[in-house]
Amino acid sequence: MIYLDNAATTKISKTALEAMLPYYEEIYGNPSSLHTAGQRAAEALLEARTRMARLLSCAPNELYFTSGGSEADNQALLTAAAIGAKKGKKHIVSTAFEHHAVLHTLKKLEKEGFEVTLLDVHEEGIVSPLQVKNAIREDTCLVSVMYANNEIGTIQPIKEIGAVCREKGVLFHTDAVQAAGHLHIDVKEQSIDMLSLSAHKFHGPKGVGALYVRRGIPLSILIEGGAQERGKRAGTENLPAIVGMATAFEESCAAMDESAKRLSALRDRLIDGLSDIPHSALNGDRFRRLPSNVSFCFEGIEGESLLLLLDDKGICASSGSACTSGSLDPSHVLLSIGRVHDVAHGSLRLTLSEENTKEEVEYTIKAVKDTVAYLRSISPIWRDLVTGKKEFILK
Amino acid sequence: MIYLDNAATTKISKTALEAMLPYYEEIYGNPSSLHTAGQRAAEALLEARTRMARLLSCAPNELYFTSGGSEADNQALLTAAAIGAKKGKKHIVSTAFEHHAVLHTLKKLEKEGFEVTLLDVHEEGIVSPLQVKNAIREDTCLVSVMYANNEIGTIQPIKEIGAVCREKGVLFHTDAVQAAGHLHIDVKEQSIDMLSLSAHKFHGPKGVGALYVRRGIPLSILIEGGAQERGKRAGTENLPAIVGMATAFEESCAAMDESAKRLSALRDRLIDGLSDIPHSALNGDRFRRLPSNVSFCFEGIEGESLLLLLDDKGICASSGSACTSGSLDPSHVLLSIGRVHDVAHGSLRLTLSEENTKEEVEYTIKAVKDTVAYLRSISPIWRDLVTGKKEFILK
Repeated sequence: MIYLDNAATTKISKTALEAMLPYYEEIYGNPSSLHTAGQRAAEALLEARTRMARLLSCAPNELYFTSGGSEADNQALLTAAAIGAKKGKKHIVSTAFEHHAVLHTLKKLEKEGFEVTLLDVHEEGIVSPLQVKNAIREDTCLVSVMYANNEIGTIQPIKEIGAVCREKGVLFHTDAVQAAGHLHIDVKEQSIDMLSLSAHKFHGPKGVGALYVRRGIPLSILIEGGAQERGKRAGTENLPAIVGMATAFEESCAAMDESAKRLSALRDRLIDGLSDIPHSALNGDRFRRLPSNVSFCFEGIEGESLLLLLDDKGICASSGSACTSGSLDPSHVLLSIGRVHDVAHGSLRLTLSEENTKEEVEYTIKAVKDTVAYLRSISPIWRDLVTGKKEFILK
Repeated sequence: MIYLDNAATTKISKTALEAMLPYYEEIYGNPSSLHTAGQRAAEALLEARTRMARLLSCAPNELYFTSGGSEADNQALLTAAAIGAKKGKKHIVSTAFEHHAVLHTLKKLEKEGFEVTLLDVHEEGIVSPLQVKNAIREDTCLVSVMYANNEIGTIQPIKEIGAVCREKGVLFHTDAVQAAGHLHIDVKEQSIDMLSLSAHKFHGPKGVGALYVRRGIPLSILIEGGAQERGKRAGTENLPAIVGMATAFEESCAAMDESAKRLSALRDRLIDGLSDIPHSALNGDRFRRLPSNVSFCFEGIEGESLLLLLDDKGICASSGSACTSGSLDPSHVLLSIGRVHDVAHGSLRLTLSEENTKEEVEYTIKAVKDTVAYLRSISPIWRDLVTGKKEFILK
């Protein structure tokens, strides 16, 4: 099996899994318990928090553990909204291609009287700091811009956007679910007020994530109950997963530069290879993208058929986000960069990890080329295109 | 180490942990992905859901996986509140000794204009169906009564309360976090509309739970985002933990009757042994309590000192709920059964599991007796009591 869907989820690293096991089998106490079993767990919890914080350049008590990226995004947005509402500031700036954890929370806030400006991300899939600056109003309480997009992998100028927000005195949240462990993060240097991440996107376990919240920001509670996470997130701490996340995060951050070099080379070979396919287009900026991300549209075919045939050839790929698969609507991300419906339907996302090889990349290029050619040979839309009944959109 | 804090958290069963590992190492795909790796994960997810549902007597699609009991409680209460608000019904009936995941959510709802009636649980720690019946009003939208209390282990007449609610046409939620895997659950027979449970209380992993919601009840979304859990709970499914939960739940339910017999005997020996201590009292009804739960108050001592000295003797115990430890306030549960502040401070909770032995129980009885005697010998409050400066409350 050639696994090229690492933006959907990654295989857990052996080191992370091994680090977790003692917290299932031996140090299984509840970190809130006063006895030795509990206190050993509490120490491990603090240690994991400290290790994570160091890599984000924040203080351990600025970090809140959650059940994942979606929960962290929800809590961050509701926090900014609550702060804004108190001051009569009910305007939020975000982008058109955020993850649904952000977009759907914004929809909910709109129903509660908030006004949301979704910035255009242009053909290249990138917002500019100037756009953010121009969108900020007197009543803006939050800017939320993702660090890297989950479908097309484009990287946003987070540091510059952070600086704009800091200057304007507006809270800045970034959904760093696709970036954490893969791109440099320094919440101080990048002027980030809140940041969400998820362990299973960097070879940590599923079901755990973190929310960084700059000291002084009064965090709203999403899950009420016990006094865990300094009273801001109830529920017995998922210690094995938290330790696994800290371990995987350290491992990913340590390997980041080396890995970026290696993956970029594989990515670029994939992009070059697939660009040979006529009437195709890379989605998102060629260079300002995750080292792991390749996203294409092929005219005249259905992405879903492409996936299923690639799967038969042993390749695990995706048409876009796993979170929205099963939906027949074309990806809001692809629409946001100007792909029309017909073209957006013929999309393919290949996302690499350290485990992928050059051989796999060559095999995949050939498999995609062959499969696209086959699907076009039986596609009525393609027939209309080549006979001139319909006009080509790509190239 | 003698671990007697199984109400705080349990050690994961070997079977459950072994069942989880393949979902970390091999079947690591995202269940939302269309390719083989994703579909194998999706099949395992459905299988786990089906196994859990069978044991609760519900349909698989009436079960929603969450990050734990607190999240499930929050979502259940917000759901009933949203349904009630639409009909202009803003009154909720619950009990004075619910878990904070319920009580704090109720506080939040009070701020939103809901009126909450907390039923008295009496000295024995049990509410009667008649109390529930009498508390229900025209504008009641929810009754939420826990199945078994987390501190004193008393079991509520859930089936009878369910029948009252069904007859009155009011939604009935039960926090079954302490009951699941330990007491019989049949949501149909018990007329339960919503039920919360948490895996780590029955030897499953931490960080995962479930919410049963009867078909036809429109579930409110707590975590917005992707389309997971039929669009009602966003975030990549924590498949290893979900499989671990289903496995542990099956194991606990299969062993339930046998285990109850064995644990009750150990519990009764503990209760008899500790009852020898003068000026002590069992908290909660002697018989209608979890087979695993022993909860005492000892006059003239501080529970925290007792815990620390027992810990020195290798015994992991608790004064009450782990979720509220660290707080100096006496337990709201002990206050709810009429313990005054001074007495409530001298509390001890011992909660058993299948791993505990008769020898451990005998050792613990002696250790508690010795330690209570020692602490009283150095306690100024005790001196006041024996010299008649203060009056004894217990016995």
